[in-house]
Amino acid sequence: MTRIAIVGVAGRMGRTLVNAVQQDTEASLAGGIVEPGSSLVGVDLGELAGQGRLGVAAVDDPARIADDIDVLIDFTAPRVTLDNLAFCATHGKRMVIGTTGLSEAELAELDGYRERVPMVFAPNMSVGVNLTLQLLQTAARALGDEGYDIEVIESHHRHKVDAPSGTALKMGEVMADVLERPLKEYGVFERVGQCGPRTDKEIGFATLRAGDIVGEHTVMFATEGERVEITHKASSRMTFAKGAVRAARWVAGQSAGRYDMQDVLGLD
Amino acid sequence: MTRIAIVGVAGRMGRTLVNAVQQDTEASLAGGIVEPGSSLVGVDLGELAGQGRLGVAAVDDPARIADDIDVLIDFTAPRVTLDNLAFCATHGKRMVIGTTGLSEAELAELDGYRERVPMVFAPNMSVGVNLTLQLLQTAARALGDEGYDIEVIESHHRHKVDAPSGTALKMGEVMADVLERPLKEYGVFERVGQCGPRTDKEIGFATLRAGDIVGEHTVMFATEGERVEITHKASSRMTFAKGAVRAARWVAGQSAGRYDMQDVLGLD
Amino acid sequence: MTRIAIVGVAGRMGRTLVNAVQQDTEASLAGGIVEPGSSLVGVDLGELAGQGRLGVAAVDDPARIADDIDVLIDFTAPRVTLDNLAFCATHGKRMVIGTTGLSEAELAELDGYRERVPMVFAPNMSVGVNLTLQLLQTAARALGDEGYDIEVIESHHRHKVDAPSGTALKMGEVMADVLERPLKEYGVFERVGQCGPRTDKEIGFATLRAGDIVGEHTVMFATEGERVEITHKASSRMTFAKGAVRAARWVAGQSAGRYDMQDVLGLD
Amino acid sequence: MTRIAIVGVAGRMGRTLVNAVQQDTEASLAGGIVEPGSSLVGVDLGELAGQGRLGVAAVDDPARIADDIDVLIDFTAPRVTLDNLAFCATHGKRMVIGTTGLSEAELAELDGYRERVPMVFAPNMSVGVNLTLQLLQTAARALGDEGYDIEVIESHHRHKVDAPSGTALKMGEVMADVLERPLKEYGVFERVGQCGPRTDKEIGFATLRAGDIVGEHTVMFATEGERVEITHKASSRMTFAKGAVRAARWVAGQSAGRYDMQDVLGLD
Repeated sequence: MTRIAIVGVAGRMGRTLVNAVQQDTEASLAGGIVEPGSSLVGVDLGELAGQGRLGVAAVDDPARIADDIDVLIDFTAPRVTLDNLAFCATHGKRMVIGTTGLSEAELAELDGYRERVPMVFAPNMSVGVNLTLQLLQTAARALGDEGYDIEVIESHHRHKVDAPSGTALKMGEVMADVLERPLKEYGVFERVGQCGPRTDKEIGFATLRAGDIVGEHTVMFATEGERVEITHKASSRMTFAKGAVRAARWVAGQSAGRYDMQDVLGLD
Repeated sequence: MTRIAIVGVAGRMGRTLVNAVQQDTEASLAGGIVEPGSSLVGVDLGELAGQGRLGVAAVDDPARIADDIDVLIDFTAPRVTLDNLAFCATHGKRMVIGTTGLSEAELAELDGYRERVPMVFAPNMSVGVNLTLQLLQTAARALGDEGYDIEVIESHHRHKVDAPSGTALKMGEVMADVLERPLKEYGVFERVGQCGPRTDKEIGFATLRAGDIVGEHTVMFATEGERVEITHKASSRMTFAKGAVRAARWVAGQSAGRYDMQDVLGLD
Repeated sequence: MTRIAIVGVAGRMGRTLVNAVQQDTEASLAGGIVEPGSSLVGVDLGELAGQGRLGVAAVDDPARIADDIDVLIDFTAPRVTLDNLAFCATHGKRMVIGTTGLSEAELAELDGYRERVPMVFAPNMSVGVNLTLQLLQTAARALGDEGYDIEVIESHHRHKVDAPSGTALKMGEVMADVLERPLKEYGVFERVGQCGPRTDKEIGFATLRAGDIVGEHTVMFATEGERVEITHKASSRMTFAKGAVRAARWVAGQSAGRYDMQDVLGLD
Repeated sequence: MTRIAIVGVAGRMGRTLVNAVQQDTEASLAGGIVEPGSSLVGVDLGELAGQGRLGVAAVDDPARIADDIDVLIDFTAPRVTLDNLAFCATHGKRMVIGTTGLSEAELAELDGYRERVPMVFAPNMSVGVNLTLQLLQTAARALGDEGYDIEVIESHHRHKVDAPSGTALKMGEVMADVLERPLKEYGVFERVGQCGPRTDKEIGFATLRAGDIVGEHTVMFATEGERVEITHKASSRMTFAKGAVRAARWVAGQSAGRYDMQDVLGLD
């Protein structure tokens, strides 16, 4: 059993991580960390997550539960994450990091721990997305130069501010690499008005923004007579939380180093 | 039984119309017209359409079969269509017209026959598309001002030169009318880069171009917690052919006038 | 502003209802009710729902907040709901009831309050599902006797114990009524092995069970050349919660009577 | 350029094959064969297929065009196919065979030519279906034992007499092999009434029959928080025709032997 503590357990992602650990038969919830001085110190983690009493109370300092845990999972903020890396280095713990938005300097600081802390650092922990990237490579290799047109469609909630999504671009890039069609040259990001017929090698992107869609991506390979479509749909943060727990179980058996989800999933 | 003749019976749409008439239990194939002097004069219409002998031969002048027919179906070119309207006016026949690309002058000429010829003139004869327009009005009325985001997605084959499709725009327009949100102001036809969060009232359009897709349109109404999607998929020209045959059966019982598919389907 | 109290505010649906009320600009959260003697009495409803302090504390008896509220929303258990109806009758309050599984006797008891309590009672409060039922009637009327095959597909999470879903059956029934094809006679619930070609009038049902799917229903009308598909996707309990809040706002202005969602949405 | 002759060029599949050869830049249409004594002998193959004159006339005996061709493509009937194999053995030609419904004895007779004729024999020549089978193996390997539920959904036209489709079963089988879950034990082909919650290891099948759907297959891998879906949609016989032409080009360079589409596509 991998003993896991969740950083930022009071937030929406933190609560989701509590649920994900609870559902995993090879992991146990060994602690939850809230901000120093929070009124939630001492609250039962299960009650916090809306699951009923679990018998583990929130603390505001990982050092208080150092003997109980193997891995920290942290989807919070860069400064918090770096402080927790320092804690892991000192106490011989491991880390799974889903925090985003690190500056170059912060990334360098994080990377400095790779010799001392076994860590998984990945912007998208979804098992399904990482598998999908692999399937897209296979499909692009088989179909891309055989007259199949490639289109990427992504849908997200109304609050998302950029388009196409980072994941859609990543999907396009893995296919562009296989086909030697750089997106800067072959990516088509808008079609409006008299845009003419499709060119053979373009990779098209279409974007939808509506409601509460967590994230849906479809890549279509279409030619005369048939289509192959590969779709990923995230229905809740749980997908990222479960990927994180899987990463935690995996990193518990690794030596110091900085890993990503391809390593965890053995997809390389 | 409505006795139907197909204009342009040698073309792809003409052959599809032959099949559609054959499948309709209340219509009979009474003639097929090819270009003057064509080597196909005298050829059996069934063999032409790949169905085996039907016992009706192609002619190159509708006057030769004037006594055998009730309605002409014409999806050819403006000049041919206008000549056939003159024939119908003279011989007391009816017409179903799916021809597109008429100039203003040609439209006026066509319209000049409305007092003398019962005709159905519609750019899209699909029963499903016309029903879908009605469903969209109902849905927009119920959801449009209740926090549901509206997005229109359309997919067509790689040869299509304009975007969004005329049908997608028509779908947007019927909703825009209901919601008093003119597309010129509220339509969003591209989202690329840092485009910011979605606004409440925009109607988004996304376009895919790939393979041999005859035409697919989906309108999504999405809010927190749910989505309603209304989709039309054309799988072959047969959808337009069947709408034309249905229009022919309907117009056989009408007095002179210019009608559209809403009239035929009783959807108004 | 409609002042709303949530019964069973500690449960998953109760928390979702708190969020739905908070998001509605014409409703205010005036109270939350937990089981008598619960340790959650006095806890802030916002903290309970993971939203931060709202300044309204949970109580274990609606009588304590009788002066503060207009409508009770109750998605709990039959006995609790009936006790709350008695409270509403005494104190001149209204009720929105999403409770299911009432026995015949309990239904009769509930119905006995229709002269004294304005109430909305509906098994599915989703605005989208109720609209979808109306769209299906329109589509079935237009296409059902014109050679379009009707199929109903539903997907739910792995824990669901019955098939097809109640909502799928309801969809089938509204179309069966329009087309005078009773499901007992025309419903086809399985196709395995050498089952022969499809009959013209059957209404087919297909069931998927997988993962955490909250609920997806598609009705397909397909003929040669085209398809119309009408789809509803629930992505969270929020869809039912938002329908309930909308019902609460509506019932606040009604006289005594038992209403359903068609009344609330004005869809009849 | 591979010189191809089409057997059964007057049928629907034959005409589709003519179009597929015409579209292929590395193949040329060298002949078309009709039934002995057919009135179509001497007719231009292009006119037969609705494409305009191609300058190649139909014959009723392959021996008449033996010097002009490299490969025969045959999607006809077992007896015809076996006669053509004899012709190929005698004249040193190659064959692509999509004929189905061979008896055990006929299969044995076909197999007897493997030493003398380079042939591709496959029930489904679609490139996309064969790629999809490979993607499903990858996905099943990555997700099947990690809590993802597997469901196979297939849709076909109203005339199809068996369920699930052979292709759906093949998809199930390749995943069953990877996961060591024989379909006889783990396949679930119907869910009606109180069927209880889904079991972890079952592979579910759902069947739709409607309209003119050529063939659509989706395999869903769903767990809490996400789904991966892999879909194949055939939109016309062209998909099988194009696979056949690709097979013809490939087999033109092979020595005697019996091959399948995995060989042609290099997917093994």
